[in-house]
Amino acid sequence: MAKVKVVINGYGVIGKRTADAVAKQDDMEIIGVVKQRPDYNAKVAVLKGFKVYVPEASAMDEFKKANVPCAGLADSLFKQADIIIDCTPGKVGATYKPIYQKLGKKAIFQGGEKKDVAEVSFVAQCNYEKARGKQFVRVVSCNTTGLSRTLCAVHQAFGISDSKVVLARRAADPNDTSCGPINAIIPELTIPSHQGPDVQTVLPEVPITTVALKVPTTLMHVHVVFATLKKKTTTDEVRKVFAKTPRVRLISGKEGFSSTAQIMDYGRDTACLRGGRDDLMKIQVWEDSISVDAKGNELIYLMAIHNESDVIPEEIDAVRAMMNLCDAKTSIAKTDKALQLDNEI
Amino acid sequence: MAKVKVVINGYGVIGKRTADAVAKQDDMEIIGVVKQRPDYNAKVAVLKGFKVYVPEASAMDEFKKANVPCAGLADSLFKQADIIIDCTPGKVGATYKPIYQKLGKKAIFQGGEKKDVAEVSFVAQCNYEKARGKQFVRVVSCNTTGLSRTLCAVHQAFGISDSKVVLARRAADPNDTSCGPINAIIPELTIPSHQGPDVQTVLPEVPITTVALKVPTTLMHVHVVFATLKKKTTTDEVRKVFAKTPRVRLISGKEGFSSTAQIMDYGRDTACLRGGRDDLMKIQVWEDSISVDAKGNELIYLMAIHNESDVIPEEIDAVRAMMNLCDAKTSIAKTDKALQLDNEI
Amino acid sequence: MAKVKVVINGYGVIGKRTADAVAKQDDMEIIGVVKQRPDYNAKVAVLKGFKVYVPEASAMDEFKKANVPCAGLADSLFKQADIIIDCTPGKVGATYKPIYQKLGKKAIFQGGEKKDVAEVSFVAQCNYEKARGKQFVRVVSCNTTGLSRTLCAVHQAFGISDSKVVLARRAADPNDTSCGPINAIIPELTIPSHQGPDVQTVLPEVPITTVALKVPTTLMHVHVVFATLKKKTTTDEVRKVFAKTPRVRLISGKEGFSSTAQIMDYGRDTACLRGGRDDLMKIQVWEDSISVDAKGNELIYLMAIHNESDVIPEEIDAVRAMMNLCDAKTSIAKTDKALQLDNEI
Amino acid sequence: MAKVKVVINGYGVIGKRTADAVAKQDDMEIIGVVKQRPDYNAKVAVLKGFKVYVPEASAMDEFKKANVPCAGLADSLFKQADIIIDCTPGKVGATYKPIYQKLGKKAIFQGGEKKDVAEVSFVAQCNYEKARGKQFVRVVSCNTTGLSRTLCAVHQAFGISDSKVVLARRAADPNDTSCGPINAIIPELTIPSHQGPDVQTVLPEVPITTVALKVPTTLMHVHVVFATLKKKTTTDEVRKVFAKTPRVRLISGKEGFSSTAQIMDYGRDTACLRGGRDDLMKIQVWEDSISVDAKGNELIYLMAIHNESDVIPEEIDAVRAMMNLCDAKTSIAKTDKALQLDNEI
Repeated sequence: MAKVKVVINGYGVIGKRTADAVAKQDDMEIIGVVKQRPDYNAKVAVLKGFKVYVPEASAMDEFKKANVPCAGLADSLFKQADIIIDCTPGKVGATYKPIYQKLGKKAIFQGGEKKDVAEVSFVAQCNYEKARGKQFVRVVSCNTTGLSRTLCAVHQAFGISDSKVVLARRAADPNDTSCGPINAIIPELTIPSHQGPDVQTVLPEVPITTVALKVPTTLMHVHVVFATLKKKTTTDEVRKVFAKTPRVRLISGKEGFSSTAQIMDYGRDTACLRGGRDDLMKIQVWEDSISVDAKGNELIYLMAIHNESDVIPEEIDAVRAMMNLCDAKTSIAKTDKALQLDNEI
Repeated sequence: MAKVKVVINGYGVIGKRTADAVAKQDDMEIIGVVKQRPDYNAKVAVLKGFKVYVPEASAMDEFKKANVPCAGLADSLFKQADIIIDCTPGKVGATYKPIYQKLGKKAIFQGGEKKDVAEVSFVAQCNYEKARGKQFVRVVSCNTTGLSRTLCAVHQAFGISDSKVVLARRAADPNDTSCGPINAIIPELTIPSHQGPDVQTVLPEVPITTVALKVPTTLMHVHVVFATLKKKTTTDEVRKVFAKTPRVRLISGKEGFSSTAQIMDYGRDTACLRGGRDDLMKIQVWEDSISVDAKGNELIYLMAIHNESDVIPEEIDAVRAMMNLCDAKTSIAKTDKALQLDNEI
Repeated sequence: MAKVKVVINGYGVIGKRTADAVAKQDDMEIIGVVKQRPDYNAKVAVLKGFKVYVPEASAMDEFKKANVPCAGLADSLFKQADIIIDCTPGKVGATYKPIYQKLGKKAIFQGGEKKDVAEVSFVAQCNYEKARGKQFVRVVSCNTTGLSRTLCAVHQAFGISDSKVVLARRAADPNDTSCGPINAIIPELTIPSHQGPDVQTVLPEVPITTVALKVPTTLMHVHVVFATLKKKTTTDEVRKVFAKTPRVRLISGKEGFSSTAQIMDYGRDTACLRGGRDDLMKIQVWEDSISVDAKGNELIYLMAIHNESDVIPEEIDAVRAMMNLCDAKTSIAKTDKALQLDNEI
Repeated sequence: MAKVKVVINGYGVIGKRTADAVAKQDDMEIIGVVKQRPDYNAKVAVLKGFKVYVPEASAMDEFKKANVPCAGLADSLFKQADIIIDCTPGKVGATYKPIYQKLGKKAIFQGGEKKDVAEVSFVAQCNYEKARGKQFVRVVSCNTTGLSRTLCAVHQAFGISDSKVVLARRAADPNDTSCGPINAIIPELTIPSHQGPDVQTVLPEVPITTVALKVPTTLMHVHVVFATLKKKTTTDEVRKVFAKTPRVRLISGKEGFSSTAQIMDYGRDTACLRGGRDDLMKIQVWEDSISVDAKGNELIYLMAIHNESDVIPEEIDAVRAMMNLCDAKTSIAKTDKALQLDNEI
């Protein structure tokens, strides 16, 4: 069978990781990536064997000057694609939609776009089927993905009648040195914050209220989840549910994971066991934080989200769903095997 | 009437602020402060006219070398005191208790000590009367004080049937350069965290569950409070309650208070209007964050706590309660006037 | 004698401090400050008794909505001024220059403007006389001011044949939460950095090469100065020179000043002794860092600069020089007395 | 030929990287690593196929409880070694020296130990020959290694008559969340700082004075080097020298390397091309910062040092020198090939 021809539009934090992930699948291939400037990211793309296209002719000169080979214009690349994964910055994706539409191409958008950019807001283990055969799908944000993965598992096991979540967000990505704060906590003052409604685009059946704070760190988000359960349970039962949930990993303070710093350090140490990226695509749930009250229906858990990478497996699954390649279970298993997520590391 | 003779044992973050605050009252006076090392804090104490005593004779030489006048040994100072405000570091206060007991002296401990160090855990506007005439009182921690002040007001107005709080804690005080993290979020993995039970030492009638995260900032703590109310209400009613609660200040994002950084900047700008310290002893509640749901009984609010100073008014009130000088209302009003907290600044 | 009528255009980090400082002088007065938005800074200006003007009529509505009294338009205010201290953001000052020129007004610009915005680049103790009677003077940046103050003293005492300086710059002001980096060191890659040539606008006779790094802190800049001296000397002699240099303060690690954090903590503790601001307008030179080599002509010293406030005394002196009120020595002494800088605190 | 049997004592930041690097060589092998606690680092060691030994019998229980296989006691492991690479924390290495001596084993110490712990302070491209056949060698610290590599190259090309260096040091490693500062600059107040004399243990012929500052970042150190050259040259010539110096990489701001953050981001992106670690063992010199003055003998350059990993190639070369396996050139080339440093990435 011919491989699905994938184009990555925007080779930044998400784009470059998605390209690496697509390249590891046996049923799809990268036919080109679109990058605006010939910086080190463009050079890395070339090193990895990706053809680099530019959005506008004017950029070709810049590439020439910087001695970075440029394969042509994005427009010509789009035409050859079966599907475009749009990894341009928030709100920019929407401006590309008419172009994709005109070309009659399928496209995946990211969580920085509004939900109505696409027919479906997508998290593979929650609603893969809804994306089958669709033209436009939105892979939701890192925070929404992490919440959906874990809440979906809890909801399926015990039912959730109410949930309240506080998100302590990393204020900037590791390679973004322009954004602050350096020494402050910035609350999102619109209550509830947008993440709650966003989770409901994936899990409309789960009541959720979120409040978000930005804190001066670059590594990971941390979520504190309070969930009221319909069915009584125990701390240990919840632990078992998470233990068998795909793309969720249980960690503990006793192992030395006392903060997001040690988690990412582990990511770096085990990168060689996962194809060479320190990315932790699984949601990291502290098992020592899981706590069900004496009555059995008030659950608390804490989790850390590697915001640069937790959505990457969803990009791959979204391609398979939209191209109608297989069912959810098959796709998730295939993705996880290719990305070496099918283990306890 | 003779002024109450107050000794400050430990001239650090809390001790130096308490000394300044006592010096502004007309019914009490500082007869000496105890300081271990002749560093810049000791020099400032001397500049401000406080007599500096040392805990052990060996320190006297160090003071001589550093050219900082030392008035004598702590023991002799304790004997002259009517009351000792123990501002030594957490857990150290307890080791001084036998000394205070032997001398038959009253003493105030800080929130770093366990609750059983004292007869009462104290927040003036919640339980002043319980501290009347007592020998040992514990002024609770900055976080517990902030929660008690606001939850007490909400509880009195509407009744609280449940509350969940996430505390994003500043990881170190501004003058503490030894503690990290520099770039991580450190969750307290014991769930619930100790602050909830600590609030109940002051407000046993308010059900509360807390979870705490340490984040890399030095300025203020931020709390996200979810409270389920017994009596239905509106966002506006809650705002009015906070507006009239002593030692609580409403701020808003519209005024430019978009983070803890701007709040402390305001503290610095208005220090000259409050006797010269940038301290913000009032709990800063973002009025734009106050949110009551459509049904009327789910309340959310966000607040910032200046951890270095919010307990200072309580130290003063605790002295008055323990010395039986006056009732709660009189003491709070007197303290707030002396510390210039009786305004909207 | 009538007081000099001073207008502050721009009530931000520098503007608000300059306004406070002018208000403490007996030979000048603030007749109004110009502020664009009715945020907490505008409210503080009103609290302090300053009349607040706006640059454009459209802002008046915003002020009305925010319930902050607005005294009128900047244009009408400028007309009443003897001198305008332009504290608008970098590069904006230059756009105001034609307005000041048209009105025939004197104006002081800040270090964010290019040197040719003014006739003189000014540091009081280096070149006060050059600013006498001038229409346009530029008070140089915080870094340039700190370098000029200390290098000028060293040059006068020993002669400097070469100097190399590395500036570790705080990346954002305490109230600026938009700027990063959160976790990185950002070098200025143009070598030498602009501060060296800028020092030479004040001290053309001192050879200097500077390199600058931005680091993730908000408190103070730290400079490492290597100077080659023409006349041999000793560590102790250099210490004595700094000890008698105005607006320079010797601090030491032994006193507990082991970083910029403790220095600013001291600033906060002593604010009440300096009129209520935690600002440290003196350049803080670590006396334990002063080091002259065995041969006697290689000097090293480290200093910390409170970037928000070290230029404030210069603004005052520049007014006196431009208005021809008195000579340098008189002005500096007058300013220092009014700002309580005439002591060892 | 039998592989050299290497033991790693201490599996922390340096130890775990050294183990990975040894495992990639064809003439040496890891026969075991010593680790005190069964935390995630120990689990990773097991995952990677290393046998984990403990320093004391008491730790074996802890390992059992944590379900991490423990291969035995360090003492028994040491006996089987040809050479021990001591990667214990600073000052601890020295306490192990008598043990290694008693067993008659060769040992490599780290830069945290004093120079007299070993016969030679080692940087492969500077003084490999001196370590030939020795029993005890000290691989110098990350900072000293970076300075030695670049200064040695400059000295060989042009001669250095004087050099002054300011080191802006990352205050804590990425996985160390206990150390601050969070928001301050901490100068080393002993002038000159210890790094200068330490460089002279490797390059006694290069005059050097260093001053160090600790800044709140975890990623990399940045050095500003001022060197006075004996032989006149140009910016371009210096660039060429660095371009051909092993273990030095030229980067530029134009490529997007505007701070240490982008450099490490590149490290992460290219980890898959270097065996799976984001480590950047080469010293990163900003080519746009290289600057020779008009006269031709004052050189400035800026460089970033990945403190977790720049010394790793030296550990490997030190083994070969001490075991007398080959000459410097052969060893360096062999190491660089095995660690994929023999390219421009």
